[in-house]
Amino acid sequence: MKATMIHAARDVRLEDQPDPSIHKPTDAIVKVVAACVCGSDLWFYRGDNPIKKPFPIGHEFVGIVEEVGSDVRSLRKGDFVIAPFMYSDNTCPHCLIGIQSACSKGGFWGGPDRDGLMADGGQGEYVRVPLADGTLVSTRESPDAAMIPSLLALSDVMGTGWHAAVAARVREGDNVVVVGDGAVGLSGVLAASRMGAERVVAMSRHEARQQLARTFGATDVIAERGEAGEAAVLELTGGVGADAVLECVGTGQAMNTALAVARPGATVGYVGVPHGVELPVRTMFSRNIGVAGGVAPVRQYLPALRDDVLSGAIEPGRVFDLELPLDQVAEGYAAMDERRAIKTMLRP
Amino acid sequence: MKATMIHAARDVRLEDQPDPSIHKPTDAIVKVVAACVCGSDLWFYRGDNPIKKPFPIGHEFVGIVEEVGSDVRSLRKGDFVIAPFMYSDNTCPHCLIGIQSACSKGGFWGGPDRDGLMADGGQGEYVRVPLADGTLVSTRESPDAAMIPSLLALSDVMGTGWHAAVAARVREGDNVVVVGDGAVGLSGVLAASRMGAERVVAMSRHEARQQLARTFGATDVIAERGEAGEAAVLELTGGVGADAVLECVGTGQAMNTALAVARPGATVGYVGVPHGVELPVRTMFSRNIGVAGGVAPVRQYLPALRDDVLSGAIEPGRVFDLELPLDQVAEGYAAMDERRAIKTMLRP
Repeated sequence: MKATMIHAARDVRLEDQPDPSIHKPTDAIVKVVAACVCGSDLWFYRGDNPIKKPFPIGHEFVGIVEEVGSDVRSLRKGDFVIAPFMYSDNTCPHCLIGIQSACSKGGFWGGPDRDGLMADGGQGEYVRVPLADGTLVSTRESPDAAMIPSLLALSDVMGTGWHAAVAARVREGDNVVVVGDGAVGLSGVLAASRMGAERVVAMSRHEARQQLARTFGATDVIAERGEAGEAAVLELTGGVGADAVLECVGTGQAMNTALAVARPGATVGYVGVPHGVELPVRTMFSRNIGVAGGVAPVRQYLPALRDDVLSGAIEPGRVFDLELPLDQVAEGYAAMDERRAIKTMLRP
Repeated sequence: MKATMIHAARDVRLEDQPDPSIHKPTDAIVKVVAACVCGSDLWFYRGDNPIKKPFPIGHEFVGIVEEVGSDVRSLRKGDFVIAPFMYSDNTCPHCLIGIQSACSKGGFWGGPDRDGLMADGGQGEYVRVPLADGTLVSTRESPDAAMIPSLLALSDVMGTGWHAAVAARVREGDNVVVVGDGAVGLSGVLAASRMGAERVVAMSRHEARQQLARTFGATDVIAERGEAGEAAVLELTGGVGADAVLECVGTGQAMNTALAVARPGATVGYVGVPHGVELPVRTMFSRNIGVAGGVAPVRQYLPALRDDVLSGAIEPGRVFDLELPLDQVAEGYAAMDERRAIKTMLRP
């Protein structure tokens, strides 16, 4: 099969790789229908995360079950499935409480499992899915083609934005600020809006993203950053600050802004992988600002979000503004790196 | 009147001070029935917090209303009242959402208000109470003498322990770990127990405190600290970790322990004033551990906790293991500093 390997910064290639096969009775083989490039893939692409040796990249995909291992109970050949960005057994204590991203048997696509067996990456034609019963969520019937982008968005960005809103404890009627206008931040806007926030403030300087934020339910857009942005939020909220803040970037500046605009008693829900973030504990303490979040347990949210997509309640697939055939994966990365695209969908 | 002033590290004195009088129509004058020494007073006493010039110290007291200003509506002469450790108007947006410790007009006992007018400290015979309607909570009728210690404990430690449990999101049936066996930590044990935690693990090396923790509802006591203590918690919880953790010390070691014993998805509720705490954001992110808490909005919890004391449901006053006349205030500090006492009550 063809699958994407990253060799070094700015060097991603679609290459011939062995066709995957069932290694464990809990495996399934999925034929990928659509995959995509993640903002976190760019940490490698840009050289911010080291690459010791080439590895299969990509962790977001939807597809059709081709084959299941002998222990797989909930899936059958032909099922349309959504894969979360990590695999998990969905039965360990961490999974049962809804933090599948801490599954005691789980792991990352493109990396080794607990026995050292490598998992495939998601940006390829086929994927061997470990712990398939726990990992995959099926729509059973094949969805309309128009639904594919939105189902694919549930693999990571929509579930991650949702996690930010859950972690920030967004409640009906809240004033919510979302820091970050990437696909996750925009998904966070959609999540907060879907949860009934009265006011959703998107902090964004980019017109196309501002427009999408409004489509997703943003009631206000603040283009300023840093202190000017913080002052604008305070003005919007009568000097009080936001009831809940979603930090969807992962930089120190983004976290500082998020903390500064939170009202006393509020929680910053953060899902951007922290790079250069320092939490000012004395300030947090004196203002009673909490921080919560982390690697999103997308699997927890998948069934409900799948139903919301299928019912038409949400359309998170609008974050994809570039669609390419899989063999143009390198251009898909470049377009996101250069901010020509919010998020790239790849079709094998 | 006599009131306690702190002059320098290990130098507290009961001195003659002017009798307080109504300065603003929202003031009340309270005759102190009982006051106490706080663990946070020891930060000054031990020289950990600087003392630029002598100031009136103490921020926990109960007493009888002697006089009210012309704008005070909810109180009258003769009312028995509990003072939270900060004053607040209870009408600003921060108060209305329950974070009275961030009141836009509030302040600390013994410090200046927004107009520069000094508030009295709590360890004296009388106190001028600013914003009396917002600040004081009355029992109306005079409580039994036996209730006084428990009502006094609501001034700070019990409300602070309660805040740790609220911030940690303790729920019925939870496994809860409490780091810290001072009066606040012990109050946190009582709070978690009262909230219906199934298992409450007190981390304590001191036998008297262990016993009081059990009286307050601790089901388990762990005497080990550091990695050994963390391992003991993991063993108690089947390798999973605690559903909620209360950090009631404020040191880096205590916070590290709290974070290490929290299960993925849990929140560390922290109320110890941070001294040397650094939050390891990458670890928190990868494990989905939140932190929340801060300066406790004791005023929020006072009415319900007052009722719990008056009904006999809780007896937080058991944290007082030393009672002295006010003129022995210096010994009250020394006993706590040398850990001869958990908490000192002072009687004018």
